[in-house]
Amino acid sequence: MWNSERNMEAPQSPVKTAAVLVIGDEILSGRTQDTNSGAIARFLMGFGIDLKEIRVVSDDQAEIVAGLNALRTRYDFVFTSGGIGPTHDDITADAVAKAFGVDIGYHSEAYALLEARYPPGDFNDMRKRMARIPHGASLIKNTVSVAPGFHIGNVYVMAGVPMVMRAMLEAIAPEMPRGVTVTSVTISAQIPEGAIAETLAAIQKANPTVSIGSYPFYSEAGPGTQLVARGRDVQIVEGAASAIEAMLREKAVRFERL
Amino acid sequence: MWNSERNMEAPQSPVKTAAVLVIGDEILSGRTQDTNSGAIARFLMGFGIDLKEIRVVSDDQAEIVAGLNALRTRYDFVFTSGGIGPTHDDITADAVAKAFGVDIGYHSEAYALLEARYPPGDFNDMRKRMARIPHGASLIKNTVSVAPGFHIGNVYVMAGVPMVMRAMLEAIAPEMPRGVTVTSVTISAQIPEGAIAETLAAIQKANPTVSIGSYPFYSEAGPGTQLVARGRDVQIVEGAASAIEAMLREKAVRFERL
Repeated sequence: MWNSERNMEAPQSPVKTAAVLVIGDEILSGRTQDTNSGAIARFLMGFGIDLKEIRVVSDDQAEIVAGLNALRTRYDFVFTSGGIGPTHDDITADAVAKAFGVDIGYHSEAYALLEARYPPGDFNDMRKRMARIPHGASLIKNTVSVAPGFHIGNVYVMAGVPMVMRAMLEAIAPEMPRGVTVTSVTISAQIPEGAIAETLAAIQKANPTVSIGSYPFYSEAGPGTQLVARGRDVQIVEGAASAIEAMLREKAVRFERL
Repeated sequence: MWNSERNMEAPQSPVKTAAVLVIGDEILSGRTQDTNSGAIARFLMGFGIDLKEIRVVSDDQAEIVAGLNALRTRYDFVFTSGGIGPTHDDITADAVAKAFGVDIGYHSEAYALLEARYPPGDFNDMRKRMARIPHGASLIKNTVSVAPGFHIGNVYVMAGVPMVMRAMLEAIAPEMPRGVTVTSVTISAQIPEGAIAETLAAIQKANPTVSIGSYPFYSEAGPGTQLVARGRDVQIVEGAASAIEAMLREKAVRFERL
């Protein structure tokens, strides 16, 4: 059902889709703010890949397996973040192996990389856990702290530490497909959204290939609205943005492009 | 399968569970950082309710309906954020009605509240959209901008603007059940997690009712680890935290409780 609907919306577009699976109790407890999803979202935007869903699940094998299988069968790519370190709560690699129904064991290249990283005697059994990679996976380079991520099927498994995660995104960038990117125009207007909603709906209706979003905000100057026009055809997006600006001018609203 | 597993882990505990469904293209595009999930997580922690999953989906009716139905059948509570304003892209109320299989129409109290808010002539058709509430739902008060959220079944539907969302959390606080809250102790240690992973695993094994998380960080003083012990029995959590501190002292590691 999902695929047919998506195809109906964009019949000629081979737009790739993606999901993010964040693994971590620390996000669900509100202790840590997840910034990795946003970084992955912006990364994907650069390749014209549409991020369609983000899920955050706990450090629980059954949850990770179920989430990963739901997402990897539905989207072109899945990016996971978290749970690939040396401690007992790092269970992502095993969960990914289970989701794919493959074995897991020491990956010789990962093992060698990690062994070389530590002084003799410091490459203990727990650190060796970071060399356990599902069979059939290829490594994702970690230029920050050596311990690699990995790529299996359509799933990219990355670290949770933001600096390391971003380094892994850089490492996989060369293998990402490049599609037509989305052009986005943001207009900040000093008017409550309800006062322009009707005209805005008409502009949306006249531009079905542009996604027009309306995001209210409150500032010292009073209620305002950020209007965002997004689409893959630059000229059509520009046309919709111009229509929004014309509407604001007609209503004598103060606005600026961001 | 999920429920039986959860029950096995905590057979005597009537711990309530929850999920968050964030609705918004602006999060998926990386334009806006979602902070509502974290605010809801911390809110739930105050009531001893476990947040088990967060999902972010796009402004698409089928996505919202599917996400909501998956979550509301699995967890005790679902909290949604986003998509209840006056503009064309605000489709959450209709999606919730569809998910529950109920009709939707003007709610007399919501209508009256909104009508009273605007000067004569300003309560236009698009603003009236904010008075459309699924049948059988009760309103959630909005002390910031009047337009209410609503509560139907085990689902709380709230605004996306963080200030408004937080006001709605305050409004529903009195009706939240109060369970045993989780006690959390965080210890920041100036040592890489791989150097303490083995002892940490032993402490985790000795304290099965405590969830011990290990979160590496990088600071000017070198690699460090935040160790978090969480559980519902204060004494047992304190015992696990003391064991962690004893381990750090034995290894002459600099540490502090946060």
